Amino acid sequence: MQVSVIGSGAEHEARAEEVGRLLAERGCTVVTGGLGEVMAAAARGAKSVGGTTIGILPGESSAAANEWIDHYVVTGIGHARNFAVAASGDAVIAVGGSWGTLAEIAFAKLLGRPVVILEPGWELEGFERVATPEDAVEHVLTAL
Amino acid sequence: MQVSVIGSGAEHEARAEEVGRLLAERGCTVVTGGLGEVMAAAARGAKSVGGTTIGILPGESSAAANEWIDHYVVTGIGHARNFAVAASGDAVIAVGGSWGTLAEIAFAKLLGRPVVILEPGWELEGFERVATPEDAVEHVLTAL
Amino acid sequence: MQVSVIGSGAEHEARAEEVGRLLAERGCTVVTGGLGEVMAAAARGAKSVGGTTIGILPGESSAAANEWIDHYVVTGIGHARNFAVAASGDAVIAVGGSWGTLAEIAFAKLLGRPVVILEPGWELEGFERVATPEDAVEHVLTAL
Amino acid sequence: MQVSVIGSGAEHEARAEEVGRLLAERGCTVVTGGLGEVMAAAARGAKSVGGTTIGILPGESSAAANEWIDHYVVTGIGHARNFAVAASGDAVIAVGGSWGTLAEIAFAKLLGRPVVILEPGWELEGFERVATPEDAVEHVLTAL
Repeated sequence: MQVSVIGSGAEHEARAEEVGRLLAERGCTVVTGGLGEVMAAAARGAKSVGGTTIGILPGESSAAANEWIDHYVVTGIGHARNFAVAASGDAVIAVGGSWGTLAEIAFAKLLGRPVVILEPGWELEGFERVATPEDAVEHVLTAL
Repeated sequence: MQVSVIGSGAEHEARAEEVGRLLAERGCTVVTGGLGEVMAAAARGAKSVGGTTIGILPGESSAAANEWIDHYVVTGIGHARNFAVAASGDAVIAVGGSWGTLAEIAFAKLLGRPVVILEPGWELEGFERVATPEDAVEHVLTAL
Repeated sequence: MQVSVIGSGAEHEARAEEVGRLLAERGCTVVTGGLGEVMAAAARGAKSVGGTTIGILPGESSAAANEWIDHYVVTGIGHARNFAVAASGDAVIAVGGSWGTLAEIAFAKLLGRPVVILEPGWELEGFERVATPEDAVEHVLTAL
Repeated sequence: MQVSVIGSGAEHEARAEEVGRLLAERGCTVVTGGLGEVMAAAARGAKSVGGTTIGILPGESSAAANEWIDHYVVTGIGHARNFAVAASGDAVIAVGGSWGTLAEIAFAKLLGRPVVILEPGWELEGFERVATPEDAVEHVLTAL
């Protein structure tokens, strides 16, 4: 099972790390965009308990991957790789985030992937919203 | 000047056609995703007054372009082409729309393109919202 | 009818300009990658006789388009946009070129688009090769 | 270290399987396009000795991945994902293959990735060519 953790914002790193750790403990591979902040924190959390991480990078070099990425995918397609980040998760957890995250949320819904927004996050109608990393992970595992 | 008209939903076609017509009258090239409903209506409106239209298609064949497309771009990259639809407009007007439109709105904001949402449409904070096609076109032309 | 002119190399510009001019005289829209050298020359040739040009850009801004581009498509997907350049031509003419051009030739063949290589150019078996811009344009128009 | 194995053609499967096995024995993660024939054979070879495999898929569903793929990337961008397949290898080994493979070879060279063609394969000047799976693996590991 692969779960994508999407988002941005340094203030959300602690919760993203917890999400990554909990996913790995439940046997899920953690997929992210491979760069910093929320992406790095989620991967760090997964690695802290021996999990597996995939980073889907926007640029043309693997050197941009954060140090907690096990397997890098070098897409070279910039922000359009957000589609692949959303699509490569059997489910998606959003932690904070800005416009790029909103695009990923939209793509995940378009594809019918289960999506949960960890508060605080994007205010959108029709989404499951949860208050804690535990609830986020429980929610997507139940949906899968 | 190129303006992207994004959206979906048969119930929004009349307003999309009006947006396309007004943009063409003001000398703007109309960019869309090249397929049906709002995309076709905007292009039809532009052509009704002799305007120019570009369709950025998701598939591998130009045959999918609606009949009001002057110039087709065959991307072959599916929904990821939504980035190109947003990015190829110097400004973006959203008319109705579902998840794919939300992704385009997000990408337009990420890139700093002026975006206006023609009511009714996505409920998102921090966006300019207008009630009529005239206001939508006036808004983006003022922003450019 | 849209014909993509692909290639690179300053030494091939004169021939690319001639190809662009001849295509426009025959009523074809000229599609290129929108940047310099062969891409700029082909567009310049088309504009010299009042033709129409489309530039499918790799980056996130239309500012990179050469001055002879009428309609820009801002893909933001880097070299992966080479697929779109090949696919957006009903036929493809290669003028010089390096690795990016080879990828475009390969994609054009994969899609079954008629492709002609203007000598000197990539040495590949099974391709139509011609010696002059006139022959290149004649070849693709006959194939379409 | 990640090595991409590219190619197609049922007649090349035995050699691709051997390449995958040898790469895994040398500690390399095997990256492929995730589908059948050469892609499946290379992944099968890697898994036969406990290696790790990544499949970079063209479509919108992970269901298309062959059964030897450990980690799937669902790009949704069709043939344009060939760029990502080439770019995600620190080196690239081509086994047989048709136009899609040629595009990947071109992109790998464009990016400066070491590339080796296992005979029989594309006839292109300026490429390292080897006769056996052992030589192919040795060649790319020496280059890295």
